[in-house]
Amino acid sequence: MNKEISSQRTALFRSIQANRSFLCVGLDPDVDRLPQGLPRSPEGVLIFLRAIIQSTAPYCVAYKPNFAFFEALGPEGAVILQQTIQSIPADKLIIGDAKRGDIGNTAKAYAKAVFDEMKCDAITVSPYMGVEALTPFMAYPDKWTIALALTSNPGSQDYQRLILEDGGVLWERVMSTCAAASDPDHLMFVVGGTHPHDFRRVREIAPDHFLLVPGFGAQQGSLREVADQGFNDHCGILANVSRAILYASDMDNYAQEAANMARQYQSEMAELLMKAQLITSV
Amino acid sequence: MNKEISSQRTALFRSIQANRSFLCVGLDPDVDRLPQGLPRSPEGVLIFLRAIIQSTAPYCVAYKPNFAFFEALGPEGAVILQQTIQSIPADKLIIGDAKRGDIGNTAKAYAKAVFDEMKCDAITVSPYMGVEALTPFMAYPDKWTIALALTSNPGSQDYQRLILEDGGVLWERVMSTCAAASDPDHLMFVVGGTHPHDFRRVREIAPDHFLLVPGFGAQQGSLREVADQGFNDHCGILANVSRAILYASDMDNYAQEAANMARQYQSEMAELLMKAQLITSV
Repeated sequence: MNKEISSQRTALFRSIQANRSFLCVGLDPDVDRLPQGLPRSPEGVLIFLRAIIQSTAPYCVAYKPNFAFFEALGPEGAVILQQTIQSIPADKLIIGDAKRGDIGNTAKAYAKAVFDEMKCDAITVSPYMGVEALTPFMAYPDKWTIALALTSNPGSQDYQRLILEDGGVLWERVMSTCAAASDPDHLMFVVGGTHPHDFRRVREIAPDHFLLVPGFGAQQGSLREVADQGFNDHCGILANVSRAILYASDMDNYAQEAANMARQYQSEMAELLMKAQLITSV
Repeated sequence: MNKEISSQRTALFRSIQANRSFLCVGLDPDVDRLPQGLPRSPEGVLIFLRAIIQSTAPYCVAYKPNFAFFEALGPEGAVILQQTIQSIPADKLIIGDAKRGDIGNTAKAYAKAVFDEMKCDAITVSPYMGVEALTPFMAYPDKWTIALALTSNPGSQDYQRLILEDGGVLWERVMSTCAAASDPDHLMFVVGGTHPHDFRRVREIAPDHFLLVPGFGAQQGSLREVADQGFNDHCGILANVSRAILYASDMDNYAQEAANMARQYQSEMAELLMKAQLITSV
């Protein structure tokens, strides 16, 4: 991202305006789902992802490598992850989807791994161990910490929606206490696109924060509903799509089909941004 | 671990009896704290950990590599982690302290990474995303899933101790719902040694499960209190000590001093096991 602009939030908004898109492309490279003709190996994953990144870059503002799929390749996966990240254009936000969360000195080591070694601009973190587990990430002045609040999966019902003794809800409590420990230039939240009716409440608690919203594409969330309830004056939404773009085709036209799918998302997003007067028509 | 015994829980208990110890040595290799004379590099970490493992093996039943400290070494850290794990004697339980937790297909990839690629016997997992996030780990018949319940750090107050609408407490709800989804041969819980007064309640919810108990040594929990409240008929406790053993000396006698410290823990543990009639006096 452009580090010349002092506010990270403003820099991200300008990138959204320039790209007419708030699309984040999730990089979840399942070696068993690589298109035909690619070797089912770490090298095959790297070829695949480089082609996907090159073809989709005009239509998105961020990439989100999912660390699990790289780690599943064995120790070589860490090298492939680093090489993948190096091939992402400099103007895109790089979100390390790692969902880390641990006590102070361990969290510091994870921050070093993801920010300093892997050169990600942002990391997803899990709040179960408390705000203390997130502060070493939030302490980086030029990085983003993205805390899980209300996730897109069915399991989000198990604990995140538990009602507390004072009538609050766990995910709301997580969001308000994390928001109090940082600011909208350094902290985002994960809120699943599968919960569109919760975005009004989300915006009461965190009016200015960016939200990383998974659950579109394969998980069937509605972009329009999320935009209606979730936009703020800096857009405030990064909508993640992984499998629907990555695996748009399993033939050798996979990069072109991924680009077509990303372009469709961009076109829908540009319309929503115009309607909300966040960009002007060209 | 011995895979001949059909019950994982029984195999672990027999190892505890044979070693007269329920000590788990945490491997948190901070490159800045390596003893004098070792290169401050990934190679230095490997030399350090191999010496620590060799010298402490007679006094413990498990090792717990903390993935954060390996990842902080950059991509080479994954190779060092694998080589460290390969140097652990075959009769010890290997706990991958990774605190992973994500939706189904991602959790599957993490399970592959930690169990199949890194050859760990167990993994620590974070429950915020629900039971669904843990089931791909619990599905492995010959592996352990270790869910965070009540962690040792001050941040455990933030969410884990929140009182629910029905009078329950979040960590208790996490424990009871996870216990219902698996069994004591495949599931353990993390309960911090810094909360000795909670072990009675823990044993009401999970009488038969093993507990991985951090928070001794540097974090000052009391082994005696935890044993008094936490032992069950299979011992049921793995007490983790990391820094107090690893960094017992920063001179070139570090391996010997680590062994001395581990031996002290073993001796205290043997006494507690005898007092509870879990082993006989020799």
